[in-house]
Amino acid sequence: MAIVLGPNQYGKAENRVVRIYRETPRHEIRDVNVSTSLRGDFSAAHLVGDQAAVLPTDTQKNTVYAYAKEKGLGAIEAYALTLGRHFVDDIGPVEGARIEVDEYFWDRIEVHGRPHDHSFVRRGQEVRTTIVTVEGEREWVVSGLKDLVVLKSTGSEFRGFLTDRYTTLRETSDRIMATSLVARWRYRNTDVDWDATYAGIRAVLLARFAEVHSLALQQTLWEMGKAVLEGFDPVAEIKLSAPNKHHFLVDLAPFGLENPGEVFHADDRPYGLIQASVIREDTADDADDPALAWYTVPAFA
Amino acid sequence: MAIVLGPNQYGKAENRVVRIYRETPRHEIRDVNVSTSLRGDFSAAHLVGDQAAVLPTDTQKNTVYAYAKEKGLGAIEAYALTLGRHFVDDIGPVEGARIEVDEYFWDRIEVHGRPHDHSFVRRGQEVRTTIVTVEGEREWVVSGLKDLVVLKSTGSEFRGFLTDRYTTLRETSDRIMATSLVARWRYRNTDVDWDATYAGIRAVLLARFAEVHSLALQQTLWEMGKAVLEGFDPVAEIKLSAPNKHHFLVDLAPFGLENPGEVFHADDRPYGLIQASVIREDTADDADDPALAWYTVPAFA
Amino acid sequence: MAIVLGPNQYGKAENRVVRIYRETPRHEIRDVNVSTSLRGDFSAAHLVGDQAAVLPTDTQKNTVYAYAKEKGLGAIEAYALTLGRHFVDDIGPVEGARIEVDEYFWDRIEVHGRPHDHSFVRRGQEVRTTIVTVEGEREWVVSGLKDLVVLKSTGSEFRGFLTDRYTTLRETSDRIMATSLVARWRYRNTDVDWDATYAGIRAVLLARFAEVHSLALQQTLWEMGKAVLEGFDPVAEIKLSAPNKHHFLVDLAPFGLENPGEVFHADDRPYGLIQASVIREDTADDADDPALAWYTVPAFA
Amino acid sequence: MAIVLGPNQYGKAENRVVRIYRETPRHEIRDVNVSTSLRGDFSAAHLVGDQAAVLPTDTQKNTVYAYAKEKGLGAIEAYALTLGRHFVDDIGPVEGARIEVDEYFWDRIEVHGRPHDHSFVRRGQEVRTTIVTVEGEREWVVSGLKDLVVLKSTGSEFRGFLTDRYTTLRETSDRIMATSLVARWRYRNTDVDWDATYAGIRAVLLARFAEVHSLALQQTLWEMGKAVLEGFDPVAEIKLSAPNKHHFLVDLAPFGLENPGEVFHADDRPYGLIQASVIREDTADDADDPALAWYTVPAFA
Repeated sequence: MAIVLGPNQYGKAENRVVRIYRETPRHEIRDVNVSTSLRGDFSAAHLVGDQAAVLPTDTQKNTVYAYAKEKGLGAIEAYALTLGRHFVDDIGPVEGARIEVDEYFWDRIEVHGRPHDHSFVRRGQEVRTTIVTVEGEREWVVSGLKDLVVLKSTGSEFRGFLTDRYTTLRETSDRIMATSLVARWRYRNTDVDWDATYAGIRAVLLARFAEVHSLALQQTLWEMGKAVLEGFDPVAEIKLSAPNKHHFLVDLAPFGLENPGEVFHADDRPYGLIQASVIREDTADDADDPALAWYTVPAFA
Repeated sequence: MAIVLGPNQYGKAENRVVRIYRETPRHEIRDVNVSTSLRGDFSAAHLVGDQAAVLPTDTQKNTVYAYAKEKGLGAIEAYALTLGRHFVDDIGPVEGARIEVDEYFWDRIEVHGRPHDHSFVRRGQEVRTTIVTVEGEREWVVSGLKDLVVLKSTGSEFRGFLTDRYTTLRETSDRIMATSLVARWRYRNTDVDWDATYAGIRAVLLARFAEVHSLALQQTLWEMGKAVLEGFDPVAEIKLSAPNKHHFLVDLAPFGLENPGEVFHADDRPYGLIQASVIREDTADDADDPALAWYTVPAFA
Repeated sequence: MAIVLGPNQYGKAENRVVRIYRETPRHEIRDVNVSTSLRGDFSAAHLVGDQAAVLPTDTQKNTVYAYAKEKGLGAIEAYALTLGRHFVDDIGPVEGARIEVDEYFWDRIEVHGRPHDHSFVRRGQEVRTTIVTVEGEREWVVSGLKDLVVLKSTGSEFRGFLTDRYTTLRETSDRIMATSLVARWRYRNTDVDWDATYAGIRAVLLARFAEVHSLALQQTLWEMGKAVLEGFDPVAEIKLSAPNKHHFLVDLAPFGLENPGEVFHADDRPYGLIQASVIREDTADDADDPALAWYTVPAFA
Repeated sequence: MAIVLGPNQYGKAENRVVRIYRETPRHEIRDVNVSTSLRGDFSAAHLVGDQAAVLPTDTQKNTVYAYAKEKGLGAIEAYALTLGRHFVDDIGPVEGARIEVDEYFWDRIEVHGRPHDHSFVRRGQEVRTTIVTVEGEREWVVSGLKDLVVLKSTGSEFRGFLTDRYTTLRETSDRIMATSLVARWRYRNTDVDWDATYAGIRAVLLARFAEVHSLALQQTLWEMGKAVLEGFDPVAEIKLSAPNKHHFLVDLAPFGLENPGEVFHADDRPYGLIQASVIREDTADDADDPALAWYTVPAFA
């Protein structure tokens, strides 16, 4: 039986675009990392090295930078949709485009108590993300955040779990819970106030993390995801991936010291990894759609 | 309409196991990074915080280490299959398991021209990988490698490509081509000589990279993938992901110097990213199977 | 001539201590990374493998954790001084100790507009640092910060520079200036309000970065350092190391677009690296003191 | 008392130069990372922003690339000396230059058992380093290696150590010893066969690591350093910095399993950090010379 070319895509990854809006003395900044991938019939490039249908990745890079001026760079979802639509509509051989954008945040530097007009300091480690897919007439937007590092110093238990002959863990009714959250939520459509919705979802995720008395990280993730779907109608589903960054209570008894939840060792590896999705019942089927799998997760790991 | 729990999994990531075989003075070493994920009906843990069906990730970690002794740690595929089968067969609520193993290689240190019995030096940056999924009676093995950094100082062209108004790239008939290869191949079954097949596929990938006069990175990937399928019957499909690590010829003309392919700047970002799969025609349908999407790529990006 | 043991030290690096203060429902958190190094006559350990004078690095680790409870973990300088003094005074063979502490900051999560009692989110990328050295009766404290990422979107020039036959750079009177600042300042003594002084110096560094119209990064560093010495009497000298994180204006002319300081490419490497120290004239000699070289920079690069 | 400018330097860091020698079909490759720093009287640039004495870091970058063609790029020490000498001799205001070069190694890809002419695969993680300082007529060369990861699966003890009330560590007469070695050695002069000496020293370091039955990492470092000074007359001193990458024997007793040195957990942090220098007695004084401190360690940490 024959050996044939399977799914494939190509593009320019990690274009580091910084866009300054300077119409007034009070500058605005958008700092993003843009990756493009194009799909279509690129068989000839693979099978015989014929590039006639291949728009160079260098051109994709140029377009990324040119569009930041020509079309503007506001909400990353809008920018990515514009880019993706361009590749699909304007470049003959391109049938689908996947545009991924990460955004880094900046705060204004405070000088004598007043935010400065054109000087900024990087805010947090958190990255806002979007993955936009355009295929023919269809469009999907999967936005999210990553590297949102949070910690609770109490209000977290882990008890009543299943045991087997390899179980040595003791139950605890009070532990540190910490994670570096990755969240990705899929929008039902593209008629969304992107920036406001992002800010709103982020606030809900943080609030639920804080408020839920956690019997397990699974429970916290579920409550966070559920609150997002309840509060934001445009969101069809949300996926949460949370490393359980273990903080082990240090045994100080050998030194004659008590340690009632005060001194911890923050360990690196291994870590628990809890991953859960929360969906609307009517979109549950969509979640099994191969097309969606293709669009919401990296096509190649 | 209701909000419900969607796909979920949990486990212990990045267990760093080092296994020494010391039956004779000439020690053997296996150095691996093991991540486990369990699937099943863990709704209660999410919805009401009930852990009765949850085998702790700490227990999964213990099992990873205990099995390195109890069952042995040879080829990572065999080890991962044994682990995955254990979780699915022996732990009631577990319906599926995903075991990912990375392996780091060591060479023996040469002392006076002879390989030492118990002293080693890390070989290369290359990592051998496997992702084993066990679900009920079924088993999938997707093995591969990553961080295999290769470079050709000639024998690579890029010409005749599609252009548009954003195209400024010039054609070239001689450039450096370099990449840090990620390859993942899916085995048809588990009746495989894992170590020998890994070594064989790696050699073929390197040889094709070297031998193919490249008209595009796409073509090189296709030739590499095709050679693997032709040479290794147990392989059903292969996915290749290759950053085009750009080496830009430096313009030395302002300094009165020629630069006929001699001095390059190795750039970091952006980089081209070329991804292609090569499949057997009869397994092409499988590649669109949602189950396979679930198993061959991370469930949560 | 004989081959002899030269300078040496040993310790436990990167102890990740998290200290929770939970006397009231409103918890406080200190999150630090502690590295210890001990000096003294450890010749026997090197020359003949005799460990009789060697306090294990494991014991140093235990002490780091025990002291977080026993002595408390407030300002990192005070904690490090206590640790260093202990090793030198209480452990016979130890003549000198170098304690390095990095601190990571957390903000309280806002829930319905109110800071939460025990839930936190990591603030910024900035790390507060201290290197404390205790030798016999003497003590040095060199504190600082690193990874403070700042950017000005205007107010930065670079003109009138020296040229030679390898110069191709054009002058600019308006560019982005960005850096990831490392600052280290040496205190004259240990009678300092550590936390308040840190906050004050950080504010001055940020304000000067924002306010100074920069003719060169050198000038900005000088102004930042001078302001710190002028404002903070306990500081004897300050060293600033600043990568010039280049933001290149993208040439959009080929696409018929102007780019008046709006679209930039943030490049990774190479980067300028500007390093300057600002000192009080009367301490200038100290800066050449070999002891200080030993204490203010890593003994081994 | 006055506030004045202290020690300062500036340059271009991490120029990623790849040099191909292609005079014959069998290409040679040199892959390096070059950082330059210039010293001299640059007060005006700092104090008043006057750049008249400042050779731009962009020009330094251009020179780095141009010299790779104009002067050639062979042994990194020779290349760095040429660059440093140029800046000091040819650029008026420059009094001193510090040139740091890292080199990455490549092996030829084997095709059908024969090394390929122009296709390469990255060898190991090890990096060869040099720091060359030129000041007026004087020149120092401090070469070395880093990221050389080695492991012994036996032949390492740790017993008879000092204990105090914080000591819980048990003695061991058989453990894994592993490290990621950093070595830096200072040459007496520049009349050296750089490539051959590097290869020789590397071989001696590896052999001693393997052969010495270790009573402590300190002892191993001493033996490694001593062997280098004994074997290589041009070397004046050597500094070794070795993280003790802990491999903890996993307690399998709870699972009814013995673990006689077979299954280990490779931990990340904290790690021991052992640093030692070995010197010739007649150069011991040099090691305390402030000038050398300035030249052999980074001026700014």
